[in-house]
Amino acid sequence: MLKTHSLIEPQDLSVEEIEELFTLADDIKNRPGLYINACEGKLMGTLFYEPSTRTRLSFASAMNRLGGRVVGFSDPGSSSVTKGETVADTARMLSAYADIIVMRHPYEGAPKVASLYSDIPVINAGDGGHNHPTQTLTDLYTMHTVFGRTSDLTVAICGDLKFGRTVHSLIQAMSRYENVRFILISPEELRVPRYLRQFMKDNKVDFTEVEKIEDAIADCDVLYMTRIQRERFSDESEYERLKDFYVLDGEKMKLARENMIVMHPLPRVKEISREVDYDPRARYFRQARYGMFIRMALILKLLEVGYQPKQTRLTPTKYHCKNPRCICNLENEPQQMMEIAPNEYRCLYCDYTVHIEE
Amino acid sequence: MLKTHSLIEPQDLSVEEIEELFTLADDIKNRPGLYINACEGKLMGTLFYEPSTRTRLSFASAMNRLGGRVVGFSDPGSSSVTKGETVADTARMLSAYADIIVMRHPYEGAPKVASLYSDIPVINAGDGGHNHPTQTLTDLYTMHTVFGRTSDLTVAICGDLKFGRTVHSLIQAMSRYENVRFILISPEELRVPRYLRQFMKDNKVDFTEVEKIEDAIADCDVLYMTRIQRERFSDESEYERLKDFYVLDGEKMKLARENMIVMHPLPRVKEISREVDYDPRARYFRQARYGMFIRMALILKLLEVGYQPKQTRLTPTKYHCKNPRCICNLENEPQQMMEIAPNEYRCLYCDYTVHIEE
Amino acid sequence: MLKTHSLIEPQDLSVEEIEELFTLADDIKNRPGLYINACEGKLMGTLFYEPSTRTRLSFASAMNRLGGRVVGFSDPGSSSVTKGETVADTARMLSAYADIIVMRHPYEGAPKVASLYSDIPVINAGDGGHNHPTQTLTDLYTMHTVFGRTSDLTVAICGDLKFGRTVHSLIQAMSRYENVRFILISPEELRVPRYLRQFMKDNKVDFTEVEKIEDAIADCDVLYMTRIQRERFSDESEYERLKDFYVLDGEKMKLARENMIVMHPLPRVKEISREVDYDPRARYFRQARYGMFIRMALILKLLEVGYQPKQTRLTPTKYHCKNPRCICNLENEPQQMMEIAPNEYRCLYCDYTVHIEE
Repeated sequence: MLKTHSLIEPQDLSVEEIEELFTLADDIKNRPGLYINACEGKLMGTLFYEPSTRTRLSFASAMNRLGGRVVGFSDPGSSSVTKGETVADTARMLSAYADIIVMRHPYEGAPKVASLYSDIPVINAGDGGHNHPTQTLTDLYTMHTVFGRTSDLTVAICGDLKFGRTVHSLIQAMSRYENVRFILISPEELRVPRYLRQFMKDNKVDFTEVEKIEDAIADCDVLYMTRIQRERFSDESEYERLKDFYVLDGEKMKLARENMIVMHPLPRVKEISREVDYDPRARYFRQARYGMFIRMALILKLLEVGYQPKQTRLTPTKYHCKNPRCICNLENEPQQMMEIAPNEYRCLYCDYTVHIEE
Repeated sequence: MLKTHSLIEPQDLSVEEIEELFTLADDIKNRPGLYINACEGKLMGTLFYEPSTRTRLSFASAMNRLGGRVVGFSDPGSSSVTKGETVADTARMLSAYADIIVMRHPYEGAPKVASLYSDIPVINAGDGGHNHPTQTLTDLYTMHTVFGRTSDLTVAICGDLKFGRTVHSLIQAMSRYENVRFILISPEELRVPRYLRQFMKDNKVDFTEVEKIEDAIADCDVLYMTRIQRERFSDESEYERLKDFYVLDGEKMKLARENMIVMHPLPRVKEISREVDYDPRARYFRQARYGMFIRMALILKLLEVGYQPKQTRLTPTKYHCKNPRCICNLENEPQQMMEIAPNEYRCLYCDYTVHIEE
Repeated sequence: MLKTHSLIEPQDLSVEEIEELFTLADDIKNRPGLYINACEGKLMGTLFYEPSTRTRLSFASAMNRLGGRVVGFSDPGSSSVTKGETVADTARMLSAYADIIVMRHPYEGAPKVASLYSDIPVINAGDGGHNHPTQTLTDLYTMHTVFGRTSDLTVAICGDLKFGRTVHSLIQAMSRYENVRFILISPEELRVPRYLRQFMKDNKVDFTEVEKIEDAIADCDVLYMTRIQRERFSDESEYERLKDFYVLDGEKMKLARENMIVMHPLPRVKEISREVDYDPRARYFRQARYGMFIRMALILKLLEVGYQPKQTRLTPTKYHCKNPRCICNLENEPQQMMEIAPNEYRCLYCDYTVHIEE
């Protein structure tokens, strides 16, 4: 039985619990016929406050493959709930109908709010630039499936490492495993943020930072590709100079080990050329399939936890969250700035940290 | 077996039939496991010509919890049926695929038209400002569940009583029960319309009209809150003067009886302050859950009635409906102005009444 | 077992295979209870890149009536997959989740591309003005159901025969049967295109071209009505002169045989007046129901074929498709211009043919 009632951020699950999910996902993958009625009579509510077809289809497929049912909405335009109703109220309303909620929201912390008011489990399917824990589970489970382990791996990560939510979560999640080494491939101005570099140092995680795929590809077990958006470059000529460095093609693949794999959260745009699709080391489409299996395992485990009546009544804190993208500021939720170190306060909803001296 | 093939307006069901629905809904609520395959092989078509996430999710959840399936559309933007096809044709088309239709439409009378042409049962899920019978059933079923009765109750209703469809239906529906008393709370300019006041007098229903929640809250078994929209006030200063009178907060709740309940059709905006959510007398989120159960009962009962081939061919009447929001004028349905009193004619579709002297 | 893995164009199915589908559809129609769990555990992905409510509901109803499940999107607005991701990648992604894909796309050849990359069967639910093979199956199955045959029939087809995709497919499909005769009813400027006239001559199919319904209605077994759009006329006065010729009403029906039938792909606008609906020869609403049964048969047969790993890697051809509405030009798919006659090249994706002399 999981300790958490909801999955809001990757750290809600212990390493042992993730291992349990892997075991269950393996069984589902190997013996899918055993699970086609596992969620009979159960209902998932999918609240997508912004479109994310890929994630939504993955969850809906997972629930349907378990014999459960799905209701919900897929974009705010066709939804009246977004007009004037808070996430808290919508979560309570859906608690009346469904057995589990999957929520995507452009504001950071929105699924956290839902989990505070909902009597049924909530899964965060992406909240702005904040968290997307089932993507992280998908990534870990892909490595588990291919290598039989999530430790003792050299993982090269390529792209926009400054703003990439997926990348930050993956680094934090993998830092919990033994002997994981990162090679971080990015242009100077899109390197990982300082807090993450500090995090790796604090956790004694080995990492190097390089500028080109060629500097890393020969040494890694995993090459994790992500997109670099032109808009992220302050200098157009810098983008032009660098963009080809971040396109994985057949030439570069020649430098890679035979048993390495290429991963990508998808959708891929131009950062992986189509010829690579025919290389057996390309695993990004399989990765999507593994994502469905791990979501099936997660749904089953959270439904085991099930219904837990909530009477949350939070006392507002003295200090206020300064994040304009935080749900607490959008919807007037009680402020929850928790002191995490002297004069350092972190928002319970969005994890935004501020230094406050009186 | 219900006498009606479709539920278009609350009066389509007799008091006895509503009682039957309550009994079935109670059993579903108490023994949900018995019903998870009750609608196996059955298909609901949801035609939402305007978005109404809450109502749509309630129906879809109800059908899925019965083991049935749902197809449909949730807003006109993503639908091509609305382009040039009449409601009558769409209803006939969906009759070819589904076993029951749920329709929401901005034009009054549209579900009535669908029921005239569809071979399968039609449920009105809201037609403009006209009817929304399953909201009324939800309200009645909530009182039945809490008090064990829908008679012998003092019901205070607060908000925009002039334009509120929900309120009008509730008053009419409850007037059929013994010893029901209304306390109507609204500003002068948003009092119930004259026809409804006359209706209550004709039916010997006791009612009083007051201006503030404080004038009613101590005396009622049910406080039914609804929203007051700023736009409804002709005079901004009047709105400013009154708006706080129509906000239910912890202070006002102190005046209420211990065993009274607060209801609201949701979504709630500011008319109920969030502190009231923690008061055990607040039942508005539960009310949503009861709405799902009563809809489950209704679906089961209407599917019992099932398929009935239609060959409706209406002869147009001499007089025309004057309601610009009536579906008959939008889609050129045969006019059906029925004489209900000397020189008084009522439209079959939208119930709009006109006085015609030749 | 069908030879084809996907249904992209009507000719993908042999006459014998279509006959097999009819037999299965008949059984489904007669004994629906036998099939309510036939697709238990199977998942359909519906990718509608443009709205088509009628077709989508028909497929979703078919899959649900077989006990299968449906996930997908219904219009591009609420979908992020369309932003920058190719149809090829989306098809591969959905292959990871689902067991069968149904695709509607405004660009010609898009479902063909999907079928080249997807490991699971793909059904074309309409690609621009190109193909819509399940509409053709619906039309054939309707005749099979009513007459017990698709041969030995005189079929009058009325409307815009120049641009009507439905009409072109129907003519080509029926030309494969013995003793089928067409009466083509259209204004001069909207007659069937030259290639189709040539096709009928090559296949020794008897046809006549007339200008009015009255010129054909007394002689046909089937009157297949379609819409004529005002925009198709270059000359407004010509439209005004002709439009009533193409409206089927009770008067014209008096000229028709007793055992003929009226068909229409729906939605009908004004080309069939509502009084005809009550004529027992009107079969257009039934036709929609037959469409659901034939789709059920098709889904079952394609799922039998099932999963087939794809490693398609096409070598681009020298010449380029000139069709601006071809998916290959939109998404940079490898050009595939096949020589079908000396200096004649046809695009594999969209069937657009060009004459190239070097």
